[in-house]
Amino acid sequence: MTSRPPSRFPYAPGSDGTPRIAYGADYNPEQWPRDVWDEDIRLMREAGVNTVSVGIFSWARVQPAEDAWDFAWLDELMDLLHAGGIGADLATATASPPPWLTTAHPEILPVTASGATVWPGARQHWRPTSPVFRAHALRLVRKMAERYADHPALVAWHVSNELGCHNIYDYSDDAARAFRDWLRARHGTLDALNHAWGTAFWSQRYSDWEQILPPRLAASHPNPTQQLDFKRFSSDALKEYLRAERDVLREVTPDVPVTTNFMVMGNTKGMNYPDWADEIDFVSNDHYVHPGPQDRDELSFSANLTSGIAGHRPWFLMEHSTSAVNWQPVNLAKRPGDLARDSLLHVAHGADAVCFFQWRQSAAGAEKYHSAMVPHAGPDSEVFRAVTGLGRTLQALAPVAGAGREPARVAVLFDWDSWWASEQDSHPTSRLDYRQEALDWYSALLALGIRADVVTTRAGLDAYDLLIAPVLHVIPEVLAKDLTRYVEGGGHLVTTYFSGVVDENDHIWLGGYPGALRDLLGIRIEEFGPLAADETVALDNATTGTVWTDRITVTGPAVEVLARYRTGAYAARPAVTRRAAGRGSATYVSTRLGADGLTVLLPELLAAAGVDSELPAAARGRVELAVRRGPDSRYLFLVNRTDETVPLPGIGGELLIGPAATEGGFALPPRDVAVLRQSAR
Amino acid sequence: MTSRPPSRFPYAPGSDGTPRIAYGADYNPEQWPRDVWDEDIRLMREAGVNTVSVGIFSWARVQPAEDAWDFAWLDELMDLLHAGGIGADLATATASPPPWLTTAHPEILPVTASGATVWPGARQHWRPTSPVFRAHALRLVRKMAERYADHPALVAWHVSNELGCHNIYDYSDDAARAFRDWLRARHGTLDALNHAWGTAFWSQRYSDWEQILPPRLAASHPNPTQQLDFKRFSSDALKEYLRAERDVLREVTPDVPVTTNFMVMGNTKGMNYPDWADEIDFVSNDHYVHPGPQDRDELSFSANLTSGIAGHRPWFLMEHSTSAVNWQPVNLAKRPGDLARDSLLHVAHGADAVCFFQWRQSAAGAEKYHSAMVPHAGPDSEVFRAVTGLGRTLQALAPVAGAGREPARVAVLFDWDSWWASEQDSHPTSRLDYRQEALDWYSALLALGIRADVVTTRAGLDAYDLLIAPVLHVIPEVLAKDLTRYVEGGGHLVTTYFSGVVDENDHIWLGGYPGALRDLLGIRIEEFGPLAADETVALDNATTGTVWTDRITVTGPAVEVLARYRTGAYAARPAVTRRAAGRGSATYVSTRLGADGLTVLLPELLAAAGVDSELPAAARGRVELAVRRGPDSRYLFLVNRTDETVPLPGIGGELLIGPAATEGGFALPPRDVAVLRQSAR
Amino acid sequence: MTSRPPSRFPYAPGSDGTPRIAYGADYNPEQWPRDVWDEDIRLMREAGVNTVSVGIFSWARVQPAEDAWDFAWLDELMDLLHAGGIGADLATATASPPPWLTTAHPEILPVTASGATVWPGARQHWRPTSPVFRAHALRLVRKMAERYADHPALVAWHVSNELGCHNIYDYSDDAARAFRDWLRARHGTLDALNHAWGTAFWSQRYSDWEQILPPRLAASHPNPTQQLDFKRFSSDALKEYLRAERDVLREVTPDVPVTTNFMVMGNTKGMNYPDWADEIDFVSNDHYVHPGPQDRDELSFSANLTSGIAGHRPWFLMEHSTSAVNWQPVNLAKRPGDLARDSLLHVAHGADAVCFFQWRQSAAGAEKYHSAMVPHAGPDSEVFRAVTGLGRTLQALAPVAGAGREPARVAVLFDWDSWWASEQDSHPTSRLDYRQEALDWYSALLALGIRADVVTTRAGLDAYDLLIAPVLHVIPEVLAKDLTRYVEGGGHLVTTYFSGVVDENDHIWLGGYPGALRDLLGIRIEEFGPLAADETVALDNATTGTVWTDRITVTGPAVEVLARYRTGAYAARPAVTRRAAGRGSATYVSTRLGADGLTVLLPELLAAAGVDSELPAAARGRVELAVRRGPDSRYLFLVNRTDETVPLPGIGGELLIGPAATEGGFALPPRDVAVLRQSAR
Repeated sequence: MTSRPPSRFPYAPGSDGTPRIAYGADYNPEQWPRDVWDEDIRLMREAGVNTVSVGIFSWARVQPAEDAWDFAWLDELMDLLHAGGIGADLATATASPPPWLTTAHPEILPVTASGATVWPGARQHWRPTSPVFRAHALRLVRKMAERYADHPALVAWHVSNELGCHNIYDYSDDAARAFRDWLRARHGTLDALNHAWGTAFWSQRYSDWEQILPPRLAASHPNPTQQLDFKRFSSDALKEYLRAERDVLREVTPDVPVTTNFMVMGNTKGMNYPDWADEIDFVSNDHYVHPGPQDRDELSFSANLTSGIAGHRPWFLMEHSTSAVNWQPVNLAKRPGDLARDSLLHVAHGADAVCFFQWRQSAAGAEKYHSAMVPHAGPDSEVFRAVTGLGRTLQALAPVAGAGREPARVAVLFDWDSWWASEQDSHPTSRLDYRQEALDWYSALLALGIRADVVTTRAGLDAYDLLIAPVLHVIPEVLAKDLTRYVEGGGHLVTTYFSGVVDENDHIWLGGYPGALRDLLGIRIEEFGPLAADETVALDNATTGTVWTDRITVTGPAVEVLARYRTGAYAARPAVTRRAAGRGSATYVSTRLGADGLTVLLPELLAAAGVDSELPAAARGRVELAVRRGPDSRYLFLVNRTDETVPLPGIGGELLIGPAATEGGFALPPRDVAVLRQSAR
Repeated sequence: MTSRPPSRFPYAPGSDGTPRIAYGADYNPEQWPRDVWDEDIRLMREAGVNTVSVGIFSWARVQPAEDAWDFAWLDELMDLLHAGGIGADLATATASPPPWLTTAHPEILPVTASGATVWPGARQHWRPTSPVFRAHALRLVRKMAERYADHPALVAWHVSNELGCHNIYDYSDDAARAFRDWLRARHGTLDALNHAWGTAFWSQRYSDWEQILPPRLAASHPNPTQQLDFKRFSSDALKEYLRAERDVLREVTPDVPVTTNFMVMGNTKGMNYPDWADEIDFVSNDHYVHPGPQDRDELSFSANLTSGIAGHRPWFLMEHSTSAVNWQPVNLAKRPGDLARDSLLHVAHGADAVCFFQWRQSAAGAEKYHSAMVPHAGPDSEVFRAVTGLGRTLQALAPVAGAGREPARVAVLFDWDSWWASEQDSHPTSRLDYRQEALDWYSALLALGIRADVVTTRAGLDAYDLLIAPVLHVIPEVLAKDLTRYVEGGGHLVTTYFSGVVDENDHIWLGGYPGALRDLLGIRIEEFGPLAADETVALDNATTGTVWTDRITVTGPAVEVLARYRTGAYAARPAVTRRAAGRGSATYVSTRLGADGLTVLLPELLAAAGVDSELPAAARGRVELAVRRGPDSRYLFLVNRTDETVPLPGIGGELLIGPAATEGGFALPPRDVAVLRQSAR
Repeated sequence: MTSRPPSRFPYAPGSDGTPRIAYGADYNPEQWPRDVWDEDIRLMREAGVNTVSVGIFSWARVQPAEDAWDFAWLDELMDLLHAGGIGADLATATASPPPWLTTAHPEILPVTASGATVWPGARQHWRPTSPVFRAHALRLVRKMAERYADHPALVAWHVSNELGCHNIYDYSDDAARAFRDWLRARHGTLDALNHAWGTAFWSQRYSDWEQILPPRLAASHPNPTQQLDFKRFSSDALKEYLRAERDVLREVTPDVPVTTNFMVMGNTKGMNYPDWADEIDFVSNDHYVHPGPQDRDELSFSANLTSGIAGHRPWFLMEHSTSAVNWQPVNLAKRPGDLARDSLLHVAHGADAVCFFQWRQSAAGAEKYHSAMVPHAGPDSEVFRAVTGLGRTLQALAPVAGAGREPARVAVLFDWDSWWASEQDSHPTSRLDYRQEALDWYSALLALGIRADVVTTRAGLDAYDLLIAPVLHVIPEVLAKDLTRYVEGGGHLVTTYFSGVVDENDHIWLGGYPGALRDLLGIRIEEFGPLAADETVALDNATTGTVWTDRITVTGPAVEVLARYRTGAYAARPAVTRRAAGRGSATYVSTRLGADGLTVLLPELLAAAGVDSELPAAARGRVELAVRRGPDSRYLFLVNRTDETVPLPGIGGELLIGPAATEGGFALPPRDVAVLRQSAR
């Protein structure tokens, strides 16, 4: 567990002085004539908006030339917000450098692995490691901080925007220089680096730091540890940039909390957010739904993981969408009810702010087909009516503000190092999807009505009765010991195929897989059995495996075979094993069972850990339960996952939002949400 | 309607002194020994060839070094043609720069969006905006013009070749400079450009013209108006180059008509041909069939559109193929009869010349597997026999020469701005296909036996009773007024999804879609409902929608719902609406119905406009009718679209070509063509 | 037939002084601590390993800086091997340049067709034509040769490694210079080159050698003869580099045989190995199975072709895998028995060495998931037990060592020029797969139990009764004459679609296809009929054609139609023809029949040539037979292709390996191999 400064969340105080859940959006009035601003403030008040992010893409506007500054419009805007009772999460405005800067300094533009320059025209066309960019950006940060340090509308600082969304991997010479410095700090000596990277193979031994390059376009697979270290470096380089902006802000406005918006969602994997979280005063996140069969499970998973990254403390939903986005191949509009349900699912998992991109839908530019709080159709629209309805709902949830997550008894472990390393090239299979495996376990838990936390290795794992660690591929020695201790202390560990295979340098733990967990699991695997795209194997517990199998030999006396392969190359061999160890156990699942298969397997694992659903039987799988706990109260969030009304008998408490309770409980309409307050026991 | 110089078509005079339809090919004798030339002339005469294009790729031959010229071979060739009674459509020879030029001046080579140089090795490796290329090319043009100004074989000038086929988009520094000049001319001031491009978003505000670049490789979606303006500029840059060549030719040979070969076909969309047509003395086109279920409909559509671009005047089919091409993934040979049928379908739509690429199939080089008039097998071949047969047919059609298109009562509007803008990135869907939607309407009209013109916004729309404007996405204010006037004047307008959404700067018409047509249509749409790739919706008129739906609210009192959604997110809502306005009407189709679905819907729309088929009932859908009209006669072209014999009772007139008439009409064999002359009423 | 120096194969002498089949692996002890080396030697002896390749990727280790050398570790290793009775196939260590070299000389890095630099990070990042690279590499070669010239462990030189695996095509300026020199040598004059390349088309005529470039990124299809010549040049450039290393080695150690490992497998087609084979003392090959329905047929085909390239003499299997590889999308483990069966199938086709990549599976680096003789699991593993079992089997096969291939009566002709040329762009179809067509014929022969040799045009074709030449696309005049002579001399030639179409410059043989074979076959084709991806045609012999058809006219009186099309555009026309000529015949197959269809067609062709299976009827198709012949004995290799036990009645001889014979023959277990010795008659 890290020691993190206490969360300093920018709560918007309510009419009675108590904190309220923040509600708002990115607000980009630069795009609109001045008379629209007044309508904006009026409509914000109508909708219950109390916090907006401003200035995110304003660099070219506030600094139209190297030595010209134009703050008048922003002064006026800040005043207007303050007058309207709306707090400003003020951006440092560094997200997208202005044309004058890139024209004068093309050496700040990123370079692809193939050597192509990434030109202006879109956004975020800057090298994270460019000293020239940093000097200009920090000068702007200081200007902004000094200008608005004492402005009453200022509630928080919003560093840059979606750091790394497009520029996480830069292969420029600036990047090469910074990579070398980072490697020197990590490995100390060239000998250590040569060993860590395994440069004895393919004649890659470095004799001087200056020889080292990012993994640019190569003739074949670049060195895997070079690749892995470059991912770590790239995340760290942006973190270092985040720290640089933050340090200026802390110096000028020590009392104003600082954040930056993460993108815990889908396949955004370049930024190691658990590692970044220490650097900011409160965690913010952006999340967009990618339509598909598990889309709302994914939303829940992401929100849950964000809570894990935030150390169970409240966090800020900085962006999501009222309806369609503009960057997917086909951008579906949300169905009625989705706007509120999606928002409240974030709140259920600890969001104390619900913000959208953006307030008013653009008439021009790259995101004009991205939905907003005020759509192209204007305020006379279903979207705006849903927006104002959500504003009222969030006001009713004001009591929840500040409450943290009440830990569950089950956790799913999500690890950036394993994500990065397990999906690299020249592996047993290119079909492995780290996040999908974790999501499948999470979906199975939801299907069984089991509340679970998604946590990172920085969390206190001992708190959980059942710890599910899917594809925990990278296991340094210390983590192997921690997991052994966890099991010996009575914990129930579940892990899967391709876990425990390598150490932090992507070196194999030798002697039979999974080397780091072999003794703990009581099994030994000599060869992996990845499956082709059209291949499946049947297990004797009526589930079906895909993607992977293992040729398992049981080596420990206390190992029980929970399921065997019925078909495939390893038919009759173990597929799922469990070793009892002390009061705990260690379970291994050697194939991808998918959410459905895991729903079959999990009950046995839950039973061993003594974990049962907190929901009435009829609601399990149909309603998601999340619990937040304040000093005096606990808040049960009940989210209908289905398109049908679900009865919820026997659940009591004060209804903050949701359908009126009937005798013996209440019934939750399709995709609706109820929040109950219970006194904290 | 534009004012265009009177068409100056290079008619080959017949033996009796009257014009004949031109017949011939690209002729590249440089590829063959001298003795083959004599056989060529002999075979041309045998086949009825009267016009050939020469010199297209002869730059390296006529100018083997910067200051060396070799015209002797071309002199001989021109003399030979003249002696053989064959006219020369003489190319300016600038299509492909010779190796000595690109070696001396690599700065004329195009550059891709990613910064890669486009090297020699193929053809058309030159920047449209390169001043160095232009100087060398225009010097050659002047040489050619001066040399052959008075040669009796010269009948027309052929500027370059397929301008823009490979080099329409160039991202070089030359292009950047020219783009800035073009933008200055279009927008006047930087403020105007900043507004037009919406640079207030993503910090893109320009403070100096020199900061502006083509939309090179960027970190995310480049600014959409920058993209759209770059498409406009790129078309204009080549048009400007065309003008430069033409000006030299007009100066030296004011009496010789000038053309360049367009590529109105398939997805060739970079060149705004309606806009180019003013610059030349007669319109030429190249067309190649891309095999598929609508392949001959597409041929008809392209020929029809070419006629629209030519202002209904005769045009020149500069290239098509006798059989297979060489650049498709699989290059199918034509079936017996296709060679003539395809050629005559072009003539039906106004072509007064039928030319092929190329005369004699190459033995070497990149196009050696492209069919020709004389195939690899030689003159003793089915292809050459079909070629000579077509020569005889075209002689029989000599009376048609000079006749223009007789306007139909129905038009399909095809608009380059909407094509470019509607398919840009970061849109509601990436599945929209502008030209396919237009083609589907055209196919449905063919299926119903309705003759229709394909026209551009430069046409006089008022002439049509029914105007179909599919995906008319870009509607500037003036066009919106024109369309309103059209309807109020009794016209029947039909438009579709994603029409009227933006203005000429790609700015949304606000207040609800389709902003530019909201009042005219009497509907309002708050959100688009694009459909995923595997998604369909059923309508209550037994049709099925794909790609797109709209959430329509009827706002006008005179709006009739012609069809409703039966399934999908908008079930029970309107899918097709029609608003009566004055004596006209405005219809909106909110989904892609495809050719089959439109065939169901169209009869109702045609009936409202009082349009009926001109064909006997049994022939509708099986025979395509096109009509050309001369001073005294009209010519009915009847093209059998099927593989069966089709009866054509009750159609009278003098049979120029086709099966002998029987009692009560005649019967058209599979894929055959008949042409009837009627006296013009 | 080429005159090649007598094979100088590095046989490991057995305990009784007679040669043994070499057994071993790439051995990369640099990756491991010193104490592991001792265990390695012990395990090698346990496994019967007698030969290892060392130093392949050791450049950075032996030459850590331009003027620093470190041979101590390699001295120790060589001594250790010698002490262990293990021979060293010593690499020249030039395969992968060290970081210090590429840092000092980035001008040795290859450049892609798009102009991107190929950076270090993987391996083989050097330009074959770089004079700087060559100077450094040859200096190293000389050092190695001088150092180990007299070392008793040295049994052979291993030049570089898998030459051309990643760097066969380099488009750098070095390549351009070398390409020009090569072209000058090939074509003599610019006029000749201009004619050969057909530069009269597309204005490509060169007036100076300096204007010529590799076929870099172009606007459209680059000149096809330029492309073909660039492929030839690229193969020759690497061959020339191979010669340069070899010359140094021959100078210093004239008595030590030199080899380099070819990659005759799958789609590795850049290197014209038949042409390279003359340059080395014995042929080596690397082969990896790519799982699929014909995977073991492909192994047999590749081994067979390698034997053909080696002139039927024994060759060295330098690399294959004990189980999974790491570079396929999904890397399947081998099934029990495959390790031995795959190895012995190579031996059956003439391999006198069975080596793996690599000895001990890496713990780090790009190939750590590539299987090895000692897997991650260590020697206590199924893989290592299979490895030691194979070692014993190979010892039992010692008598075979030195025996050459006993020629079969049937040959499949495989031609690099036709492979390169037939699959170029802008062809009738992009669906043609040259090697697949050859493999299909080979599979059909296996299915019928017919033994066949895979040979190149350098082989003595007259030795075969039946010569199958699929897609023999490039036929220079001399080859056309040879084939005619072959048929007239009583040979039975079978060829297919797209054969005989062009000469060595990719110029069409005019007058009707297949120009070079038209008279010999007695047919004439005016047009090709390629089939779309979903298109098939039925033949009247119950087979089905895909990919291609031809419109055939029979022109010769002695032509018999063996099969006709039943469906498709050419229904009722000939599909397969045979012309009797002298005592021989010439057969043409105009469509792709696939292995199954060819199995139907072949019996008639075999019967005409008087060829019958050498296997008992029950074993045909189920067992593959290969025969090697020594001075006194012939060795029958019988390989069970199925997963069932196959009876082999009536086959006699001394059983070297395999199941004990029973009365009347023996039965071969699934995927098992038997080797019988018979006295040579």
